[in-house]
Amino acid sequence: MPKNAEIIAIGSELLTAQRVDTNSLTVTEHLNLLGVEVVRKQVIGDDHERLTEAIRCAVGRSDIVILIGGLGPTEDDVTREAAAAALGRKLVLSLEQESVLISRFRQINRPMAKNNIRQAYLIEEAEAMPNPFGTAPGQFLSTDRGALVLLPGPPRELKPMVENELVPRLRPVLPPYVIRVRTFRITGIGESDLDTLIAPVYTKFANPVTTILSSPGDLLVHLRAQANSIAEADALLREAGNPIAELLGDRIYSEDPDEGLEMVVGRLLRKQRATVATAESCTGGLLAGRLTDHGGSSDFFIAGYVTYTNKQKTEILGVPRDLIEKHSAVSEPVAVAMAEGARQRANSTYALSVTGYAGPDGGTDFNPVGTVYLAIAGPAGTRCVRTRFGVDRYRVRALATQSALDLLRKTLA
Amino acid sequence: MPKNAEIIAIGSELLTAQRVDTNSLTVTEHLNLLGVEVVRKQVIGDDHERLTEAIRCAVGRSDIVILIGGLGPTEDDVTREAAAAALGRKLVLSLEQESVLISRFRQINRPMAKNNIRQAYLIEEAEAMPNPFGTAPGQFLSTDRGALVLLPGPPRELKPMVENELVPRLRPVLPPYVIRVRTFRITGIGESDLDTLIAPVYTKFANPVTTILSSPGDLLVHLRAQANSIAEADALLREAGNPIAELLGDRIYSEDPDEGLEMVVGRLLRKQRATVATAESCTGGLLAGRLTDHGGSSDFFIAGYVTYTNKQKTEILGVPRDLIEKHSAVSEPVAVAMAEGARQRANSTYALSVTGYAGPDGGTDFNPVGTVYLAIAGPAGTRCVRTRFGVDRYRVRALATQSALDLLRKTLA
Repeated sequence: MPKNAEIIAIGSELLTAQRVDTNSLTVTEHLNLLGVEVVRKQVIGDDHERLTEAIRCAVGRSDIVILIGGLGPTEDDVTREAAAAALGRKLVLSLEQESVLISRFRQINRPMAKNNIRQAYLIEEAEAMPNPFGTAPGQFLSTDRGALVLLPGPPRELKPMVENELVPRLRPVLPPYVIRVRTFRITGIGESDLDTLIAPVYTKFANPVTTILSSPGDLLVHLRAQANSIAEADALLREAGNPIAELLGDRIYSEDPDEGLEMVVGRLLRKQRATVATAESCTGGLLAGRLTDHGGSSDFFIAGYVTYTNKQKTEILGVPRDLIEKHSAVSEPVAVAMAEGARQRANSTYALSVTGYAGPDGGTDFNPVGTVYLAIAGPAGTRCVRTRFGVDRYRVRALATQSALDLLRKTLA
Repeated sequence: MPKNAEIIAIGSELLTAQRVDTNSLTVTEHLNLLGVEVVRKQVIGDDHERLTEAIRCAVGRSDIVILIGGLGPTEDDVTREAAAAALGRKLVLSLEQESVLISRFRQINRPMAKNNIRQAYLIEEAEAMPNPFGTAPGQFLSTDRGALVLLPGPPRELKPMVENELVPRLRPVLPPYVIRVRTFRITGIGESDLDTLIAPVYTKFANPVTTILSSPGDLLVHLRAQANSIAEADALLREAGNPIAELLGDRIYSEDPDEGLEMVVGRLLRKQRATVATAESCTGGLLAGRLTDHGGSSDFFIAGYVTYTNKQKTEILGVPRDLIEKHSAVSEPVAVAMAEGARQRANSTYALSVTGYAGPDGGTDFNPVGTVYLAIAGPAGTRCVRTRFGVDRYRVRALATQSALDLLRKTLA
């Protein structure tokens, strides 16, 4: 009999009209992979009494109960107290957690406020789950039917804790049941075109289940197979996944769900001992920001030039003034000159340039808002592509950044 | 006494890792405007028994209970049956709703499937709320403490029904009541220090309720007052908010919840007809990216130089090579020279520089990972600050960017 789970997200801000709980999606994903079904989700405000009652009910009816948030140092963080009260247990000061806290504050060179000590209290018999990204440890308590778990609310703290601490603790208490996943990370195609392309394949299979997740310029095809053994699940994933991979070709940039496009590009540059520089206008530094997102990017990243004015394009990148006057700053000749100028300035193997109208204002009849020219300069010469990305500024900048990275990926492949 | 509310969203798809309930945000927004506080939200799958129990509990403890979804024609749409069972009432075929259904199907020229008749059943004594965009009517049932409401799940059916049918039915059963909000956006202080500072004030007030929301380098203090009139609520917000504002001083960068720090900086630059350039190392373009986040940033942003190598710092920004050799690239003299070099290069009013160890590798005994030097060069000279931001690369980069923006804000203020 598979176990079921219930998730309670805690925080009054999650009961406003502006905020949704998304942490439960992360938790659900990992519980599902362990063969656990989530049967109920709740959001409760920072209210000791209401939360205590909710936890008591949840523990009575579900195998695994996950509490998210309310582990901060302040008085309105009531999760520890409410969970202890619901179980009729005490909160006990953990000397180990106290010293973890003290050394953490020493490390970041900040005095520890008095109320931070609240974060060193554990429910009787609960095990602390380390939190390398914050001051609140998680807590894991085995119960008769399963477990009660406390997780911190900030997604950057919760995510690694779920993966590194919670999953390994849950796996041994769950019945053997295998869920295996195969993912394709894809760029350069829209969501409905992707679906039209691969639906004829994936609709033939009830197992694995195929899902498409989308964010601007980035799609993820997710195949989820259930079976009694790893070998059996993997065979199902091959049977459905291989024809999908064939249809998608080089639009798949990675099969690792955690490897972003900038990581693939970094990996390829490193392997070829090549370097890169950027010349940006409308993306305003976001492309350089993506390329330097991960540690060790100084291996391949030399410089980024955010030349927002025409004068800067001329002075820093050597784009001829009359070229800009003749074609305007948003044009193929200027994109090409920016990339070549950046490559020379940085003395790098490659250079990428981006110039366009991010909006909401600007644009011409021929190049309306959303038009972006991308160029790549390298040992084999310079290439330029013209694209159009709609009218939302955030989206245009994100898509232009992603497309520039993909131009580099395809050049390196 | 203000009424409270509880929302239950129904649908197994809302318990997957891919979907969140957003209908409850629409409902919350309108309930808040009526002075009703949402104290709990739940998601339950298409499970008759579980849903019946949840509705029974909700009706017992909350004034207004809103059920969303599960009103379709198929067998797995169980909301009507579960609500009736929870209240111990019958479902009754409404002849009026039956004829509405029949004429609707005639209108769209489609045969009415047999199970569609289920949508014409109402809970005893419930009033149907017309649904011009779908086949499922809503249902409104007055209860001793308030109301039980059934709404359809598709957002394009739910939204107009809430506005046109639910709000007018709820208003007469609610006490006249107002909720008003005041927010402070804050940077330059940690969450627990902030709490230690202002808790002595806000704990004196049960109304307004004070909440602190935090993201890296960015805090939001949220005061929410309830009263019988706008004037009364605003007086409460002044009484509690003014001493908090005084304690926080210039750490408050905005009282507009939607105005980010980069927007404040942009506003101040524009007002003073000043311009800015950036020289970045460890933040890799993120500072330029923030400054160009919003439309019209070409009014004040001239250029960004992401000088990742020492050579680029010398060639682009004119940082003397021996200065880097003597002090290293992560040092006060280099940060100062970067800012001054960028200001000169861009011919801008101000320039910001960032140099530091974002991690995970790098750092020295004196300047361990997380150490960042920020400098600002302007008409009144150059200032440099040294800070330390922990060891997580994402966090170091986000906090360094935020701190640089704040340095500019304080200079402009």
